[in-house]
Amino acid sequence: MTAPITLNNKVGLNGLGAGVWNLGPGNDPFGGPTREAIPMLDRLPMLAEAGMTYYEAHDVEITAEMAADAVKVAKKCGLKCAMYTPSFFAAPIFKDGGMTSNDAAVRKLALQNAIKAVDTTMQLGAKTMVFWNGREGFDFVLGKNGRDAFKRLVEGFNKVGAYAKEQYGSKIKFALEPKPNEPRANMYLANVGEVLYLISRLQPELQPLFGANPETAHSRIAGLDYLWDVELCLEAGKLFHIHLNAQDGQRYDQDLPFGYTEPLKDLALLVVLQDAKYAGPICFDVKAPRVDDPADITDVLTVSANNLVWLWERALAVDRAKIAEFRAANRLTALSGYLAQCLYGR
Amino acid sequence: MTAPITLNNKVGLNGLGAGVWNLGPGNDPFGGPTREAIPMLDRLPMLAEAGMTYYEAHDVEITAEMAADAVKVAKKCGLKCAMYTPSFFAAPIFKDGGMTSNDAAVRKLALQNAIKAVDTTMQLGAKTMVFWNGREGFDFVLGKNGRDAFKRLVEGFNKVGAYAKEQYGSKIKFALEPKPNEPRANMYLANVGEVLYLISRLQPELQPLFGANPETAHSRIAGLDYLWDVELCLEAGKLFHIHLNAQDGQRYDQDLPFGYTEPLKDLALLVVLQDAKYAGPICFDVKAPRVDDPADITDVLTVSANNLVWLWERALAVDRAKIAEFRAANRLTALSGYLAQCLYGR
Amino acid sequence: MTAPITLNNKVGLNGLGAGVWNLGPGNDPFGGPTREAIPMLDRLPMLAEAGMTYYEAHDVEITAEMAADAVKVAKKCGLKCAMYTPSFFAAPIFKDGGMTSNDAAVRKLALQNAIKAVDTTMQLGAKTMVFWNGREGFDFVLGKNGRDAFKRLVEGFNKVGAYAKEQYGSKIKFALEPKPNEPRANMYLANVGEVLYLISRLQPELQPLFGANPETAHSRIAGLDYLWDVELCLEAGKLFHIHLNAQDGQRYDQDLPFGYTEPLKDLALLVVLQDAKYAGPICFDVKAPRVDDPADITDVLTVSANNLVWLWERALAVDRAKIAEFRAANRLTALSGYLAQCLYGR
Amino acid sequence: MTAPITLNNKVGLNGLGAGVWNLGPGNDPFGGPTREAIPMLDRLPMLAEAGMTYYEAHDVEITAEMAADAVKVAKKCGLKCAMYTPSFFAAPIFKDGGMTSNDAAVRKLALQNAIKAVDTTMQLGAKTMVFWNGREGFDFVLGKNGRDAFKRLVEGFNKVGAYAKEQYGSKIKFALEPKPNEPRANMYLANVGEVLYLISRLQPELQPLFGANPETAHSRIAGLDYLWDVELCLEAGKLFHIHLNAQDGQRYDQDLPFGYTEPLKDLALLVVLQDAKYAGPICFDVKAPRVDDPADITDVLTVSANNLVWLWERALAVDRAKIAEFRAANRLTALSGYLAQCLYGR
Repeated sequence: MTAPITLNNKVGLNGLGAGVWNLGPGNDPFGGPTREAIPMLDRLPMLAEAGMTYYEAHDVEITAEMAADAVKVAKKCGLKCAMYTPSFFAAPIFKDGGMTSNDAAVRKLALQNAIKAVDTTMQLGAKTMVFWNGREGFDFVLGKNGRDAFKRLVEGFNKVGAYAKEQYGSKIKFALEPKPNEPRANMYLANVGEVLYLISRLQPELQPLFGANPETAHSRIAGLDYLWDVELCLEAGKLFHIHLNAQDGQRYDQDLPFGYTEPLKDLALLVVLQDAKYAGPICFDVKAPRVDDPADITDVLTVSANNLVWLWERALAVDRAKIAEFRAANRLTALSGYLAQCLYGR
Repeated sequence: MTAPITLNNKVGLNGLGAGVWNLGPGNDPFGGPTREAIPMLDRLPMLAEAGMTYYEAHDVEITAEMAADAVKVAKKCGLKCAMYTPSFFAAPIFKDGGMTSNDAAVRKLALQNAIKAVDTTMQLGAKTMVFWNGREGFDFVLGKNGRDAFKRLVEGFNKVGAYAKEQYGSKIKFALEPKPNEPRANMYLANVGEVLYLISRLQPELQPLFGANPETAHSRIAGLDYLWDVELCLEAGKLFHIHLNAQDGQRYDQDLPFGYTEPLKDLALLVVLQDAKYAGPICFDVKAPRVDDPADITDVLTVSANNLVWLWERALAVDRAKIAEFRAANRLTALSGYLAQCLYGR
Repeated sequence: MTAPITLNNKVGLNGLGAGVWNLGPGNDPFGGPTREAIPMLDRLPMLAEAGMTYYEAHDVEITAEMAADAVKVAKKCGLKCAMYTPSFFAAPIFKDGGMTSNDAAVRKLALQNAIKAVDTTMQLGAKTMVFWNGREGFDFVLGKNGRDAFKRLVEGFNKVGAYAKEQYGSKIKFALEPKPNEPRANMYLANVGEVLYLISRLQPELQPLFGANPETAHSRIAGLDYLWDVELCLEAGKLFHIHLNAQDGQRYDQDLPFGYTEPLKDLALLVVLQDAKYAGPICFDVKAPRVDDPADITDVLTVSANNLVWLWERALAVDRAKIAEFRAANRLTALSGYLAQCLYGR
Repeated sequence: MTAPITLNNKVGLNGLGAGVWNLGPGNDPFGGPTREAIPMLDRLPMLAEAGMTYYEAHDVEITAEMAADAVKVAKKCGLKCAMYTPSFFAAPIFKDGGMTSNDAAVRKLALQNAIKAVDTTMQLGAKTMVFWNGREGFDFVLGKNGRDAFKRLVEGFNKVGAYAKEQYGSKIKFALEPKPNEPRANMYLANVGEVLYLISRLQPELQPLFGANPETAHSRIAGLDYLWDVELCLEAGKLFHIHLNAQDGQRYDQDLPFGYTEPLKDLALLVVLQDAKYAGPICFDVKAPRVDDPADITDVLTVSANNLVWLWERALAVDRAKIAEFRAANRLTALSGYLAQCLYGR
């Protein structure tokens, strides 16, 4: 088995992680699966083999009932759970959202599911539970009252946070993951700014439990700059988790391998993470392409990991004093050239 | 049963059409079905009930083997087949494309399937077979040799065209439907320009058999203007089919109801179709939203049809002399105001 | 002179407004002016003539020195000043931003300009001063330290707010106007979420002075939903100003006439504003197209105003009980059809 | 003076080029110049100093009257003219387009200007004249009749081509440069497909004179793939010129330094150009950022040139046999990893 990949920075060792859903059967909106579905727990050794130290899962992938087994399998292959996340977005009952559903009964059910996921997160030994706004939004204008929806988000997160605090103190933290659209035409918590703003509206004693999980592709789907989004989180002390991948402009959610489309920006991102002494796990949210054969299903992880390791080393070698000089001299185009030189290793 | 909806224009009556796939079970990349799948032939009366005169189908929805039954059911509910289309994009074997696959065996299979679909098109009584570039493209740069891919498209269409001509003369025509991306990261025949250019490269005697099937959402996914795309086809005598829907900007393929996002442009489009005396069927490619309940699955069709009927009448009432005056006076902002006035019926 | 246009809603009369810069000479990045530049104060009667009750101006258009004259001219033609705004973005000294410049001397100068603009806002009788992030951002990654930039924004707004509070109590309020890009490759305060979040970071006693000025086109340049952006502001009690126009997807900043590209969404927006009892001025930020002749330079305003008046009336006629019924019945596609019916006046 | 940069490929030496407009004074739609305008002929030695072998110019920059002087200055600093181009887009008279204007008098004038530019192209010793569709399009739907517009383009290019053929045989070739939008809301000849299609509609004997000038940023503004666009041109034998730069997604036209945003795709592009034995000049269309100081105005060129030279060498080192193996093995994700390895020089 491959040794887990660790990254040297100034404060410790970052391990890499990925989601069990990254190794799916390859179906998309226009075609069925091209690979047999691999049982979820069988995916854990595959992640380890690809060099991951951490795994991630949704509650429909590793259910509460499977948690004890997951802990055993993970231990055996040297994996830790980086985060666990309730998948309000998969079940038909939550088709129009959980916390922001127009139906009070659905909102109640969403809360129960979230609370159950908190317990499972604890059981799996993860420190972070992620909330992704997968179905919280609307397809047609006036489908919901937006002001009410925002209040419901505040109310919902307050309740989940209160439960976690009461049960587990500060052992479980929540990372909200924004996305502007897909699968809904428009989604609430569309970007990092909205997430940080929402946190400011939670009960003050619960706010320290809540942070963000920015994802490269989600920023890029809105044409927003991922680097600035991460810097916003870092300045706020709210970078509770991170999802790295690549996206080829404003289109459908691609979950391409990290480092593929915009490597120079990725290099700059790693410089920022290093300088901020970010020591959490660095996790990929990538999708094994439908075209890849079953035997090659982890290529998307090894390509992402190789790119990350190479770029991480190149980022360590970027001369921070030079950056400061270029800024002081107002030579920012030249700075971009210096970064390219670092990227290419010239 | 509702009477079929027909549109009055100066050359005849356009009927409306829709695809059997428009009434799907509601699965998307992030969640499973929310409705039971309706058997394909049972969808035909539903289309008729929603006012359609025409239906459309892929070869995996109504197979060659089902064709005889389809003809009977369609006749019973007063439907005609507007177009039939081989779905290279659905089967795993065509996961990296049919005509442009790197594998010669796959390309051969694609040709066989296309030829089989020509026969079924004939059997269903349709005059048009649509080719959509669903898997013809690439996910990663250099995944294919683009120059070879283009030559393969020319070769493939020439072969299919030659078969159709030999067997059926000019009874079957082909409408190529462009799309820039999704499900592939980048797709060949990305836009109307590429389709018209490709046709110019086919064997001269086959060129009259080939035209385009522009689709609103596909133009908008690339931020291109749908109106200009349709005008390009009309000028060339190549508007062999049309797919109407709506799309909310550059993002995932939404297939929203016609008339929803950009009704003023839709009005202008109908003016253009009327002035060009387009008399073919006007077909929707819309998707019943995942949120809609089974009982409301045809709402997406009735909303599209109502919008189309209303806009068609408004378009007939647009004073063409006024358009000419605004142009002559160089008052094009004012022209946009006049069109809004027509749209709103003020 | 045309009577000013007012809008009837349940709490009062909204007047319309526009910027003096809306009537510019027509230069763009690829071509020089097509019209002679009209002196700024001569534009005020033109706004009034086009039905506006309010005007807006940047400090480089109506300088502090011109303020007394502006007050006289405005009074004469029945105009009020809706907002005034310092244009950090125009002067070469602020080419890399004012508040977020890497140069402390530039930041100091920016503060002085902002404070001067507060005084002029007061002098012009406006209640609102807008801050647009025109140059606050970066063209190349790592051009600035984003965490420092955020802290500088907080510091800068705190200082301006403290000055305004000390001098004028709560007479002057600040509306921050977000935009994701253009003229900078990426801009800080890229969206409404970031603005609301930043306000939460200001000194508590100053926070009530700060709100947002969302602009249709700026939301749409990032593919974000304008309606949700406005609802976020309304829920927070932070809709201090509003800029309406139209934008044709994710591309360069177009400032098209209100109501042109997405009238159905515009209708929904007006429903939201009416239901929230928004009683502030409704202001356009539109640009007289370069193609328009000098004599037609206000067409962009009259088209916007006509569209707004028509849509406002249609919005008043939307049956709110029906919206509630569609929501309760989970018929949201049908709701979109109902809204289209309202839009078209059928 | 720096030695001119040449690129070794299998058929000869490619030189680099850039436009005189790349070194502008820094004005943009939101702010005036930040640098003094440098006289056009004084820019030629600056281009040479930055390593260029070729320069490019519009007819409003180096007029017919300046041509003789330009030839002398260029000779002195070792520059050749890569292409010359009529700037229909700058003059107010062509504000609504030249060839596609609704006004016959304007169309006639456009033809005269184009013909004059053919003569100047010859005089400057360039082999290529570029047509960019800067104002050929529309801002509002129905502003022009699109079918007529297409016919006018065919007619216009036929006339210019006939003149050039008659006067100069095949010494001058024409490269049409597509762009989807900006400065017009929508532009005719929006993409490479439309350009190649239009050429197929010209008089057969003139078609060999016409090809394309694809530009990275213009493809990316529509979210189209630049690599495929270039491959389309190469397959057709129509890559008559090329414009390289970078663009950060679907937004305003940025003209960023080559190699900045998507270096891995740029690497792949160079592989394609090398394999096709493209031996023409490789020209940048980049814009000195407004923030750059006068002394650093050529940074945008030297950064672009360094990136190109580095990537060109890396592209030569890409093992074509490996590409073929990855394709044959259907390991395209792994191919992307191999390309990243080549890019980073690992």
